[in-house]
Amino acid sequence: MKPKRKIFFPLTSRAYYGRMKVLLKELQEHPDIDLQIICTGALLVDRYGEKVLEDLEASGFKIQEKILSHIEGGNHVAMAKTAGLVALEATNILQKLDPDIAVVCGDRSEVLAMTIAATYMNKPVAHIEGGDLSGSIDESVRHAITKLAHVHFVTNEDSRKRVVQMGENPKYVFNFGSPDVEFASLSDMKITNEIVNNRGVGDHIDITKPFLTVIQHPVTTERDNFAHIETTLDAVLEAGIPAIWFWPNNDAGTNEMSRKLREFHEKNLTNHGIRFILDLKPDDFTSLLKTTSCLVGNSSSGIKECSYFGTPVVNIGSRQNGRTRGPNVIDVSTDKEEIKKAITAQLSHGPYPRSDIYYKPDTSKNIAATLANIELYTQKSFHHA
Amino acid sequence: MKPKRKIFFPLTSRAYYGRMKVLLKELQEHPDIDLQIICTGALLVDRYGEKVLEDLEASGFKIQEKILSHIEGGNHVAMAKTAGLVALEATNILQKLDPDIAVVCGDRSEVLAMTIAATYMNKPVAHIEGGDLSGSIDESVRHAITKLAHVHFVTNEDSRKRVVQMGENPKYVFNFGSPDVEFASLSDMKITNEIVNNRGVGDHIDITKPFLTVIQHPVTTERDNFAHIETTLDAVLEAGIPAIWFWPNNDAGTNEMSRKLREFHEKNLTNHGIRFILDLKPDDFTSLLKTTSCLVGNSSSGIKECSYFGTPVVNIGSRQNGRTRGPNVIDVSTDKEEIKKAITAQLSHGPYPRSDIYYKPDTSKNIAATLANIELYTQKSFHHA
Amino acid sequence: MKPKRKIFFPLTSRAYYGRMKVLLKELQEHPDIDLQIICTGALLVDRYGEKVLEDLEASGFKIQEKILSHIEGGNHVAMAKTAGLVALEATNILQKLDPDIAVVCGDRSEVLAMTIAATYMNKPVAHIEGGDLSGSIDESVRHAITKLAHVHFVTNEDSRKRVVQMGENPKYVFNFGSPDVEFASLSDMKITNEIVNNRGVGDHIDITKPFLTVIQHPVTTERDNFAHIETTLDAVLEAGIPAIWFWPNNDAGTNEMSRKLREFHEKNLTNHGIRFILDLKPDDFTSLLKTTSCLVGNSSSGIKECSYFGTPVVNIGSRQNGRTRGPNVIDVSTDKEEIKKAITAQLSHGPYPRSDIYYKPDTSKNIAATLANIELYTQKSFHHA
Amino acid sequence: MKPKRKIFFPLTSRAYYGRMKVLLKELQEHPDIDLQIICTGALLVDRYGEKVLEDLEASGFKIQEKILSHIEGGNHVAMAKTAGLVALEATNILQKLDPDIAVVCGDRSEVLAMTIAATYMNKPVAHIEGGDLSGSIDESVRHAITKLAHVHFVTNEDSRKRVVQMGENPKYVFNFGSPDVEFASLSDMKITNEIVNNRGVGDHIDITKPFLTVIQHPVTTERDNFAHIETTLDAVLEAGIPAIWFWPNNDAGTNEMSRKLREFHEKNLTNHGIRFILDLKPDDFTSLLKTTSCLVGNSSSGIKECSYFGTPVVNIGSRQNGRTRGPNVIDVSTDKEEIKKAITAQLSHGPYPRSDIYYKPDTSKNIAATLANIELYTQKSFHHA
Repeated sequence: MKPKRKIFFPLTSRAYYGRMKVLLKELQEHPDIDLQIICTGALLVDRYGEKVLEDLEASGFKIQEKILSHIEGGNHVAMAKTAGLVALEATNILQKLDPDIAVVCGDRSEVLAMTIAATYMNKPVAHIEGGDLSGSIDESVRHAITKLAHVHFVTNEDSRKRVVQMGENPKYVFNFGSPDVEFASLSDMKITNEIVNNRGVGDHIDITKPFLTVIQHPVTTERDNFAHIETTLDAVLEAGIPAIWFWPNNDAGTNEMSRKLREFHEKNLTNHGIRFILDLKPDDFTSLLKTTSCLVGNSSSGIKECSYFGTPVVNIGSRQNGRTRGPNVIDVSTDKEEIKKAITAQLSHGPYPRSDIYYKPDTSKNIAATLANIELYTQKSFHHA
Repeated sequence: MKPKRKIFFPLTSRAYYGRMKVLLKELQEHPDIDLQIICTGALLVDRYGEKVLEDLEASGFKIQEKILSHIEGGNHVAMAKTAGLVALEATNILQKLDPDIAVVCGDRSEVLAMTIAATYMNKPVAHIEGGDLSGSIDESVRHAITKLAHVHFVTNEDSRKRVVQMGENPKYVFNFGSPDVEFASLSDMKITNEIVNNRGVGDHIDITKPFLTVIQHPVTTERDNFAHIETTLDAVLEAGIPAIWFWPNNDAGTNEMSRKLREFHEKNLTNHGIRFILDLKPDDFTSLLKTTSCLVGNSSSGIKECSYFGTPVVNIGSRQNGRTRGPNVIDVSTDKEEIKKAITAQLSHGPYPRSDIYYKPDTSKNIAATLANIELYTQKSFHHA
Repeated sequence: MKPKRKIFFPLTSRAYYGRMKVLLKELQEHPDIDLQIICTGALLVDRYGEKVLEDLEASGFKIQEKILSHIEGGNHVAMAKTAGLVALEATNILQKLDPDIAVVCGDRSEVLAMTIAATYMNKPVAHIEGGDLSGSIDESVRHAITKLAHVHFVTNEDSRKRVVQMGENPKYVFNFGSPDVEFASLSDMKITNEIVNNRGVGDHIDITKPFLTVIQHPVTTERDNFAHIETTLDAVLEAGIPAIWFWPNNDAGTNEMSRKLREFHEKNLTNHGIRFILDLKPDDFTSLLKTTSCLVGNSSSGIKECSYFGTPVVNIGSRQNGRTRGPNVIDVSTDKEEIKKAITAQLSHGPYPRSDIYYKPDTSKNIAATLANIELYTQKSFHHA
Repeated sequence: MKPKRKIFFPLTSRAYYGRMKVLLKELQEHPDIDLQIICTGALLVDRYGEKVLEDLEASGFKIQEKILSHIEGGNHVAMAKTAGLVALEATNILQKLDPDIAVVCGDRSEVLAMTIAATYMNKPVAHIEGGDLSGSIDESVRHAITKLAHVHFVTNEDSRKRVVQMGENPKYVFNFGSPDVEFASLSDMKITNEIVNNRGVGDHIDITKPFLTVIQHPVTTERDNFAHIETTLDAVLEAGIPAIWFWPNNDAGTNEMSRKLREFHEKNLTNHGIRFILDLKPDDFTSLLKTTSCLVGNSSSGIKECSYFGTPVVNIGSRQNGRTRGPNVIDVSTDKEEIKKAITAQLSHGPYPRSDIYYKPDTSKNIAATLANIELYTQKSFHHA
């Protein structure tokens, strides 16, 4: 009997986990796969990862190892050191678990770190979401991971072409659609006023009426993160409809952004129409994206999940530069008037028709089947067209 | 007055230092550049880096910082952890020195680590030797560095094309030739019997008569490093002409290779025609490449410096797969008879005419001038042809 | 001319900095001393170290190096890893700065880490606050540092005896009093309603009327930190007079404690008589200790600074077990009724007379003079009485 | 049914393993104990740990985890960083294995690192060999471990008194004799010419005739390690009887010492009466100590195992300063004539009667029984006599 293929699967943040949930299920249930889930990064930090570990366990997953390696600081030094530390510590675990392949997704520093550890441990790497474009440091890191990886699960056709152009063998590049959009398409949870208002601080929001959702993360290659979130805050306040606002992720620049929001909260407490929350469970989050009148900020969810839902999006600044997008997105610079105008336009436009640029049926099933059966190799060689 | 541009320049191994010596000189003497030399990796380990630090200082260079982070082990775990550790420690130093750009060269794990630290510290990176092809883990790592770097100094035309194909902006890709070949072209040191025989163990070698030079490093993506060096050893012994044999570098697999050579030495001591030496100063090494009747093994020097000198080379196995080469190289598999036959062929052929595939005049001057003047940026974006 | 003695002085937390301010001044101004200030640990984390860096610079100190190495987690894993990481990174800096002696104070994990790095770098270590007794992990760590250190600046007579009993040479054990009490004795800042109420969240506190100050940190060797802070919170609320409450430090257990306080804040916002603040500048903090009607919790300030000020203290639980104390302290267990009763007793008692158990004049001058002149050594030997 | 007590047992070097072999056996076979063996440090490095892993497995032990964390360098920086790195990595493993107690032995940097990790993970620590005296950095580190540990297995009466004097509770301090001496007393292996001469380089030694054994390690608190080994080498050569010479351990200073020996070997190869060997299996090593005419150098084996065997010892320099010793030891300074004179005296004296200062029967049985049954605690408190 063929031994099961051991798949090393790091989870590094709550956003990441949400995106991967259907795939994790498929991998777990596949008869030829032995799934090894490793938790690290912000996922293990209460402030950023709340609820994920319990959701994981409630969903029947076993956490094989935890690597607490998130260096606090919210700046460039913290990101760089965290990456080094995760690579260092992942090595021991790779040695111990001796997987057949490591599966990584996206472009975060912990993901690069895991990829490097696996690479030097001479393990094949499969990468999900390669070939996408964006701003921030993620843009470089994503392509670097592509050049270290052996199997590529891209999420759209443009990205497939770019991965091949970069010298990867087309035979190992698969477009089965985006796992997060598949997750969104399958999720049937219904967000409620209770779920939203039991969390966080600020005003009570009635989600049966129009409301904005704001997610604005730092852009590591910029220095004006404080000013940019201030601009967005002013624009949202002036737009005058209620908003659910997610705290920024822990990239370099997060301190300035959080400070702005915290100071606003401490000075005003209530009666401004905003509720600040840390996070939601993946299904609740997806349902929120489907329900909200307009998503404002620079999250990739606006480009990906919202394209499928047709949710109007005001995408601010450079963070999603170049990423393939549907008709639901209005791009604006970090200018208050532009933002306000775009919000108004989106509110009056309302929902867009569903776009399938990131969607294909059975994404996770196909990825799992490929991982279980594809011939693995470690020595890469540049593929000339 | 324009402030000098601060250039962060890590040195990670003795081979690396040799390659970079002319460039270091140009950077040091450039009026608009403030050179920051950082020593790390095998360079700081006596067994591998002997003589480099003193040569550096004797040549008038100032070592700004040392990062002793070489984890002993000679295996995959050691490589992976060393990479993580170097990234971690380099961060502090980058924070302290706050350079305008980091210049890295090649494809070693410490180089990738430095690149990642610089990347997350939001510093531009210039990469030398991008776009080359090879086997081993170096193949992936080199391209990953390309995708993180902002300025590219490729060493030949094929590589320039590949770097652009991978999505780099042609305006930031420069082919000024290979710094190591330039160094070789300028070096006028004359290797002597005394220099060679004052070092290492084994037989006395008379370099005024025909002799082989053997450099065979581990191939990290293979498992048969012990068998492969045994094969080469047998082939060289049967070829029956004296040989100067360099110990392998510290990549995963080095223990098995060193053990084979050490056991041979301990059993035989002398009268076998081989002298084992650890290293030579860069000028002596270059002179040896020019003098030897044939280079045997899998070193990139055989492809690069030897193409310029016309020194016959027997290139064994997959480590240099795909690298652009001149007429001086006979490629063979890890088969004893093939190796012996190729050695015999090369000895009877003798020196080849000089090839300029890797050579251009003023390589280092041009790199230094570019580094001093080019407009720097941090946010990368994929360049579509 | 005698070269200046280079003194390596790590600062690891805002509490630590406050305690050391007079000493830092003396060291900085001493003609034979070259002071090297290193910042690390929680001091570099916004949440815990806010205002320290700017206060340092405003006070004319130069920060030589920063080591951002605080692993987020607030649990045992985070403490252990942070210690390892600080030891690792401090090594490079010790190599670079090459001090004559390292001066450490107290018993925190980062302090032990610095001591170990200095020890293996073969540098003499001077330790401030050795020989004290307490609960928590600090108890073991403090004595371990004593056994690694070469010069001891104890803060009271009991501690002097214990350090000698542990085998340290009496010739190298000095009782010049406690630097933090000296700082308190010299500080003439006047805390105001404005300083207090411009910071933090919760109710406005009028410090011209009676108020409590609460500082309760985790006890790492216990598992009930959540329950213990809940008990104290209930006791304080029932006591019915306003309170200024400091968030707990980042020892293992901090998450549970912070969560309890945060949940209370989010549910109640105001009208409960408590103001939660992160920290104050050292002088403001000292002034607060002098002004408050009663200090409640388990901070060493209650035992040390408050003994000098005669401020009534309700000391809860095991954290300060065994520490020499004055008459101003009522010790209670983690029992709500006991705590309430003790608060009431202290409020009706009012201020105590000044105690000098931790006070001597010129503490810092004497320490500085000793550090400048004492004969240094590295090889320790056990001193038999 | 009572669950088995989980005992975390790090092994950090080949010497350490030899000493602990009987104890490991007892722990493994104890019905109430679940033994967790962790290998780290020099033990995992081929040059220093050869044969240990295979001997461990051949002896039926299971290695639970490996932590490859030995930073190459042979200097102070390498020791300090290795300690930090081991503490960092041990944390993950302690979290995973969740032992009831960690058992550490001796005074090496990796042992201190393991102790610190266990301490901050709030695990009780049992320490073997506390209270001994010596020179080098080991002297401080050993006592620091004592102050962090909860249970003490001292090896002699003097040490018991010192541990109690340092404030440890006598109820937790046990003198069951020294495990290494017990191992020596039980070992019945017979060393042979074949075993000795199949290893290492240099002359063939006939161990049926008189021969010296030389073990001289670096003294980290000194700077003259090169000179000291040169002196010993000259003394041994002039003494004129054959010698088996072990390479020094990897403490700071090892490079200079190894270089001296290597240069001697490379220049002379044979006909000098010395054989250099890396190590022997524990039983072979013990048998050699019993067989040799005289042990020369500064190894603790001379003080401990040799006191039991009555083997004459010439103990050089400060490394064993203060350690309780039997009549078999002549102490000399690092002076050639003194060393020679002492060797001559010891050779003409011949074997001494057995001393039991470090010996008691059933050492390991008693330690194992205590570990299985003693009440465990984490909060330490200073024990006043």
